[in-house]
Amino acid sequence: MLAIAKAFSRALGGRGIETLGVRAYAKALGDQSTLPLSTGRPRLVILGTGWGGARLARDIDPKKFDITIISPRNHMVFTPLIASSCVGTLEPRSVTVPITDIQPALRLPQNNFLLAECDAVHTQDRLVECSSTHDGLKFFVQYDVLAIATGSQGSTFGIPGVTEYTMPLRDAANSTDIRTRLIQNWGESSIPGRSPAERARLLHVCVVGGGPTGVEFAGELADFVRKDLAKLDPNRARDMRITLIEADQLLSSFDARLREYAALKLTRAGVHLVKGIVKEVRKDELELKNGAVIPYGLCVWSTGVGPTSFSLSLPFEKTMRGRLAVDDRLRVLARHADGRGPTSLEDVSMIQEERAAAGQPTGRPIPCIFGLGDVAATQETPLPALAQVAEQQGRMASVGGTSAVIELGGSGQQHVRWSGFTSWIAWRSAYLTRLGTMKHRLYVMSDWTMSLIFGR
Amino acid sequence: MLAIAKAFSRALGGRGIETLGVRAYAKALGDQSTLPLSTGRPRLVILGTGWGGARLARDIDPKKFDITIISPRNHMVFTPLIASSCVGTLEPRSVTVPITDIQPALRLPQNNFLLAECDAVHTQDRLVECSSTHDGLKFFVQYDVLAIATGSQGSTFGIPGVTEYTMPLRDAANSTDIRTRLIQNWGESSIPGRSPAERARLLHVCVVGGGPTGVEFAGELADFVRKDLAKLDPNRARDMRITLIEADQLLSSFDARLREYAALKLTRAGVHLVKGIVKEVRKDELELKNGAVIPYGLCVWSTGVGPTSFSLSLPFEKTMRGRLAVDDRLRVLARHADGRGPTSLEDVSMIQEERAAAGQPTGRPIPCIFGLGDVAATQETPLPALAQVAEQQGRMASVGGTSAVIELGGSGQQHVRWSGFTSWIAWRSAYLTRLGTMKHRLYVMSDWTMSLIFGR
Repeated sequence: MLAIAKAFSRALGGRGIETLGVRAYAKALGDQSTLPLSTGRPRLVILGTGWGGARLARDIDPKKFDITIISPRNHMVFTPLIASSCVGTLEPRSVTVPITDIQPALRLPQNNFLLAECDAVHTQDRLVECSSTHDGLKFFVQYDVLAIATGSQGSTFGIPGVTEYTMPLRDAANSTDIRTRLIQNWGESSIPGRSPAERARLLHVCVVGGGPTGVEFAGELADFVRKDLAKLDPNRARDMRITLIEADQLLSSFDARLREYAALKLTRAGVHLVKGIVKEVRKDELELKNGAVIPYGLCVWSTGVGPTSFSLSLPFEKTMRGRLAVDDRLRVLARHADGRGPTSLEDVSMIQEERAAAGQPTGRPIPCIFGLGDVAATQETPLPALAQVAEQQGRMASVGGTSAVIELGGSGQQHVRWSGFTSWIAWRSAYLTRLGTMKHRLYVMSDWTMSLIFGR
Repeated sequence: MLAIAKAFSRALGGRGIETLGVRAYAKALGDQSTLPLSTGRPRLVILGTGWGGARLARDIDPKKFDITIISPRNHMVFTPLIASSCVGTLEPRSVTVPITDIQPALRLPQNNFLLAECDAVHTQDRLVECSSTHDGLKFFVQYDVLAIATGSQGSTFGIPGVTEYTMPLRDAANSTDIRTRLIQNWGESSIPGRSPAERARLLHVCVVGGGPTGVEFAGELADFVRKDLAKLDPNRARDMRITLIEADQLLSSFDARLREYAALKLTRAGVHLVKGIVKEVRKDELELKNGAVIPYGLCVWSTGVGPTSFSLSLPFEKTMRGRLAVDDRLRVLARHADGRGPTSLEDVSMIQEERAAAGQPTGRPIPCIFGLGDVAATQETPLPALAQVAEQQGRMASVGGTSAVIELGGSGQQHVRWSGFTSWIAWRSAYLTRLGTMKHRLYVMSDWTMSLIFGR
């Protein structure tokens, strides 16, 4: 990074961003760069390729904008299907869709996708400041309209050891890592001379977090152990244990009857449900607040999500939970008149509480800068906007195999509930219809068919 | 490793392999281990799950032996299909077959697969000494019949930088790494502000080695650039360059007409053929013996293979090229009467030359220990035995897309030659029929169909 900064300094005759100002600095960089063609249409810059960014990219009319998408991932991930890909029901390629498949107009010369991180937004100059993902080359892109959809990140709640020793369930690469670890532990457990305690540890999978992702992963894994591993080696499969640890209750945002149904199904599938709060994760074992120490071979972390340091650093208004505050048209709000720029979640909460107590008004909406998906929320509802719209239309969670709980309809509307095979089909079909391209629908269908016929 | 060794020392009352002797040491370890059941049949131990080991595992009659397979890989890799999986024509799962699918009897309690490396063979006590792949736990397994099929390893010919900076093409994981690097470089090349020279470097793929693997990879990649990347971004695809570097000639073991055909096809597909010897590989560039310096974004290394340090360390006779010397029934030969135990390839060549000059006879065949695949060779033929039988029956190399060279028939027999679409079908079909299970045949067929219809 330092070398790159120096190289730029040289290119700019030793003058940096501080002396030149953002606009001149960017212009100087632009002189030696291969910027995309422009048709003269306003340039829409989308940051992020998650549910929010990808959905916008798909729905936008490319005749109205020149489009630049900036993200460290060139594909969107069907996050609800990641649990399935950990045990081989689905292949990693089936749960990801390239952004150029989602918006084919990205192949036109005036549009482009840039594999990069956004580091800052300069509203005065309408520039985003970015660095390429792999070698950190710095560059600027001019926008007329900016859509921020950079998402959230897994929250460790400050618990020691979570980052070092547990595996998250957010990205396609995570599922490959989890699958590799499962195969490793399965293999290591049967080495002659392995002590019984060590064998038990290797065959123990701990899932922390009883939200839809954790529940679905535990269910899929139990199903995989019972149906596939049992065929491979019945003794070892019988010794395989799955524990789901949740501080509050399973699927807390769901209807009580569905929660009970999910708990019953998981228990019957052999998943051990533990109510507890994780105090510390260490290599090979974790400790609960009640003092219990649980050895594990694999620990999957799927608790709540929080704001990224990028979104916290943006010069816009934040909600109590650190998201970008947006109005009902998803426009971000200017920073509050007092000018305080919080950069940590603790600061945000404190400042918001003070302002709420003082009855201070929020900042004004900034035209042409939008926040969507997990990164943003309206001030009124503490939980997120666009990314959750689909969820409001159909909240679902699969519990492994041909059994699932499903709840359709928005809050206050009529609810439809099923369980068993029918809901499993509905659940899977719901994802199928949301997949971006025909190719991926076929991938997923082909994977499911293969799994059904031949096992995973 | 040290901690594990200490733990074992404790378990053995401080007595180690040196004081106890191999048999007693193994027995002491065995007392606390979960050794497989035995039916009283002779135990066949197979080391390795490559073409040789997997083929033997498939063909062996499990009613005649209790079977233990020991390998750091729980699957066999269809090495000739790895080139295709680098560009997404095939998925990694389609080019690997779990060893338990190849020999379903491995699921019976008296048989087992152990995810481990073999470290030594103790012929006196009929024990193999092993350590588990991931945590290095040491153990011993008794054999009545031993089949050594641990294969070869890529040879760097002592050229500096090969291990650090180039990517091999031998394992399914390699293809994932290569695919990831291609995507990274493609993305990095279009970052605004990237210098033209750096852009050219990132879009340059160097393939070193003009054997079947290198030729097939270069051909597949050229095909991918022309058909898939060109749709994504025609300018960038036009700037993508592929160079194939070979010291001697392309496909040197093939018929001259087929060699010319392959060279012509590759050149027409846009592959730049360079005759030269690599002197050194550095980060981002390599240097030829003639002084030429070639910048690259990705360098794939696919030159010849050599013996592993494990096979060199075995107390058996070696060939001039360091392989295990076997007789015509594939039995390994006892070490020569002079007792010299070479452990490096240079030693082997030297000792063999001295013995040949002195007219000394080779050692006697050891009953019940066999060498198969790349690890072994008969003294007469310097090139390998079993792994090449299939190759002798049909030497083939695909050159990307629907064009291939194919040569059928053994040496001295009538040769059949095709080129173009027919041979491509034949080439692909040949692999299909060799695939271990119906499931994998369907995977591969489904991948190919998807690629044909939707692109990669």
